[in-house]
Amino acid sequence: MNFVDSPNAQINLDSGVFCREEISSRSKYSDLAERRCHLPMNHKGKCAELPFLHHLGQVAPKVAKKIERDSIMTTGASWKSKEAGPNRILRWVMLESDDKLSTFGIHMSRLKPQVVAKLREKAADYDSCIRVAMWLTYEIYKMPDSPDVPKHIRDYLEPLFGSIVPNSTTCTICRLPLSFSLFAAARRGKAEIETCHKDPRLHQPDNVGFAHRACNIAQGPKTLNEFYDWIEQILRRARPGVFS
Amino acid sequence: MNFVDSPNAQINLDSGVFCREEISSRSKYSDLAERRCHLPMNHKGKCAELPFLHHLGQVAPKVAKKIERDSIMTTGASWKSKEAGPNRILRWVMLESDDKLSTFGIHMSRLKPQVVAKLREKAADYDSCIRVAMWLTYEIYKMPDSPDVPKHIRDYLEPLFGSIVPNSTTCTICRLPLSFSLFAAARRGKAEIETCHKDPRLHQPDNVGFAHRACNIAQGPKTLNEFYDWIEQILRRARPGVFS
Repeated sequence: MNFVDSPNAQINLDSGVFCREEISSRSKYSDLAERRCHLPMNHKGKCAELPFLHHLGQVAPKVAKKIERDSIMTTGASWKSKEAGPNRILRWVMLESDDKLSTFGIHMSRLKPQVVAKLREKAADYDSCIRVAMWLTYEIYKMPDSPDVPKHIRDYLEPLFGSIVPNSTTCTICRLPLSFSLFAAARRGKAEIETCHKDPRLHQPDNVGFAHRACNIAQGPKTLNEFYDWIEQILRRARPGVFS
Repeated sequence: MNFVDSPNAQINLDSGVFCREEISSRSKYSDLAERRCHLPMNHKGKCAELPFLHHLGQVAPKVAKKIERDSIMTTGASWKSKEAGPNRILRWVMLESDDKLSTFGIHMSRLKPQVVAKLREKAADYDSCIRVAMWLTYEIYKMPDSPDVPKHIRDYLEPLFGSIVPNSTTCTICRLPLSFSLFAAARRGKAEIETCHKDPRLHQPDNVGFAHRACNIAQGPKTLNEFYDWIEQILRRARPGVFS
């Protein structure tokens, strides 16, 4: 089980590497997916769902919270109204049928079709969310200016994704190095780094990464390949001389 | 006086082509700039400030209102708070000193520096606003699917900007033809066509045009040349093979 040889493979969290004991939750959604322990199999002490985030939670708590939130929650509607639907919700809840959701007080049929589509396309199963959280944590420790990775975190993440090479994390979209310090920078209350998806409809490690806010805004609802196609066509009209 | 031979020149509205009689206004800002008549010199009947928009006002009133608004008003803050400052204001009002503005109840020193900068960079004198309104109206009649241009409007606009060639208006940013029908299309209440500036700080005809909403969002606060530089550099990293 690793991503090193086949980074597109979906890592199997039940292959015996992780504890996977159920962690009790008071969430009203706990019937839909049990939350589980991701400490190594046969670990000592208490179970923990996201132990790979504990160090970051100490040295950069806002960044750790962001990874947890973006990995497991849908993005909220940026506009506010009853019709806009729930602001943020667990991604795996959005896998359930309209009937099931209505038992939780979420009435999809009352929402506009575009809102339903937007919520449904953010759906992802619990394990995919955990894999994305692991991957984003790994990406953090490879950023310029990032906190040093403690040995126990390195030993946890490298078998999954390969060597943690300093300064090797780039913006998923523009491909320039992405400095950890940008997490602290914000304009109008919006962070300068965002989590992004190469295909907005796929929530899995090889499709998720960090990006400059301006890059993510420019990509918009397009896939990354559609975005590159689009800017290539713009440039072919605006600057034909630079092409071969 | 025309733009045909030197489209970058600032057309002189006082050169004897236009009536330019003062039009009385009840605006509290009327001391700052008299609004004037732009019917031809020695016209018959009542004076009119934006007569070139009257036909569009009949066949596409929302588009005519948009041209008037975008030509003479600053864009509003998209976020709401006391600190965000006035939502939309006449562009020439923003040419006045802080002291003068305080006599109108606009207290610039109480706003955040970024808000002041944003408002001040939208400032433009009255004549520039009129020129932009004329230019945007001209751009409309060259769009695919646009209303047919009446002879008296054609005779008014062509001496200023050149022949009205059907289907020749393109998105300022991506340079694809821009269909008039996109004014009616809207997602989440936002029109699919926006007014844009090649340089966000210059409000004059050769710097202003229409653009797809997605293109305008992608350009963001960059100048159009900075935007082309930026996407060229992205593409050189993402698709190096397409360059010569």
